Amino acid sequence: MIAFGDRLKSVVDAHGRLCLGIDPHTSLLELWGLSNDAEGARALALRALDAAHGRVGIVKPQAAFFERFGAAGYAALEEVIRTARDGGFLVIADVKRGDIGSTAAAYGEAWLAPGSPLEADAMTAVAYQGLGSLDPVIELALQHGKGVFVLTATSNPEGREVQQSVSGSGRSVAGQLARDVAVRNASARGWGSIGVVIGATEPITASGIDPVLLQHTPVLGPGFGYQGSRLSALDSVYGVASSSVIPTVTRSVLSAGPEGLAAALDAHRAELDA
Amino acid sequence: MIAFGDRLKSVVDAHGRLCLGIDPHTSLLELWGLSNDAEGARALALRALDAAHGRVGIVKPQAAFFERFGAAGYAALEEVIRTARDGGFLVIADVKRGDIGSTAAAYGEAWLAPGSPLEADAMTAVAYQGLGSLDPVIELALQHGKGVFVLTATSNPEGREVQQSVSGSGRSVAGQLARDVAVRNASARGWGSIGVVIGATEPITASGIDPVLLQHTPVLGPGFGYQGSRLSALDSVYGVASSSVIPTVTRSVLSAGPEGLAAALDAHRAELDA
Repeated sequence: MIAFGDRLKSVVDAHGRLCLGIDPHTSLLELWGLSNDAEGARALALRALDAAHGRVGIVKPQAAFFERFGAAGYAALEEVIRTARDGGFLVIADVKRGDIGSTAAAYGEAWLAPGSPLEADAMTAVAYQGLGSLDPVIELALQHGKGVFVLTATSNPEGREVQQSVSGSGRSVAGQLARDVAVRNASARGWGSIGVVIGATEPITASGIDPVLLQHTPVLGPGFGYQGSRLSALDSVYGVASSSVIPTVTRSVLSAGPEGLAAALDAHRAELDA
Repeated sequence: MIAFGDRLKSVVDAHGRLCLGIDPHTSLLELWGLSNDAEGARALALRALDAAHGRVGIVKPQAAFFERFGAAGYAALEEVIRTARDGGFLVIADVKRGDIGSTAAAYGEAWLAPGSPLEADAMTAVAYQGLGSLDPVIELALQHGKGVFVLTATSNPEGREVQQSVSGSGRSVAGQLARDVAVRNASARGWGSIGVVIGATEPITASGIDPVLLQHTPVLGPGFGYQGSRLSALDSVYGVASSSVIPTVTRSVLSAGPEGLAAALDAHRAELDA
């Protein structure tokens, strides 16, 4: 079994580190001329995978936009994840799940257990109940070569009231969480399998996160291209951690419509290479 | 349209305030002699609803235990929620979803929008990205007479590292969140429609939560009977907020097996009345 961190590194070496977010929300389905239902979400996602082939190696479907269609939406999501994995993509399920004990374990089973209908390669998770509450998810992930990205710092201003609070160590909540995740990757030679999600429009040090800690920790960076972050600003935002960042583009690509997807992805790749 | 807080109060007045959690996890399905699949989860949940009729007015299915079966699990969950609501139960979907912007809105659509396949009466939500990040969910809830219970303090020890961190106001993260939710219920005459989740095995003041603030704020209290909290200890744990608490029993009831459910519920009701 190959650890997720190593799988992620291989995919990045082969295809670059850009990640395509797949968020079939109402306004995009409308823009694409698709129905606002599970079939529309499925069609948008599969078309996005087509355009992504050979351009990116990592995709990140957002569960919320499928969940709103209930079981039918999840049937579409199952197909999207399966198609992506069969096509060689590494799939990060953006689900931001979190709970304790057997409930946390059940979320891990849902998204990471081999053979689960929704089996992805990694999932995002929330640690409002402490990083330790995610242990059942993390253990399951490590056991099966999967990854977990823990939501750490987000770029929305309301996030500060929790993330910038001061923990017992004197660090910010975000800074402490980043450090605790990094500790779990300490024995990895390259990237560990537990990542963080840090969406930043300003230097991450402003969130109390020490980028030096993150050199073995993959950093999922959402919202590039649309939410105000530029791919060309990676170094200034993430500092020495910038080489660990998987930047994600979503709306700036999907809003180019089915015919413009490939060109939008190519433009982002060029911006990242520059 | 009747506000969720008022609907909740009516149900409590008619049936008492005990809530039955519905968590079809692997070991319970085994105990019940059911298959560990969507059909087993469905059978356990529907049987639990049968036993709950006339005994409790509120049920709380846990999405994780259905999500692990993918679309088939969600089809079962759709049926469980619909059956419960058709049977007059008030349904709180325990999903602990949270995100920002249009993604948060999509989670609200999924669980609270009238006509959604998974439409419940209320959902639980996580505010790691700040209470303001849940505004799209809260607005949708208020518009449709639905409720949102924001995860505030949890009884697992690892939760303290985030929930007991000190926010800019000098309050704990949990205390500040409880206060911010209470502010949103300030204009309610009885209960407001935005609740908090406070799982406590010790007085909630130890989490920095002022119970006086919560007199118009419904408090969902999970884990009674099994996780170490006794229904008879409501007053000592929640103080003056104890009259706002919806205590939830789950495993202590479900582990009584299909034949013992009703008696276990009756015993909890008696304990609560004592």
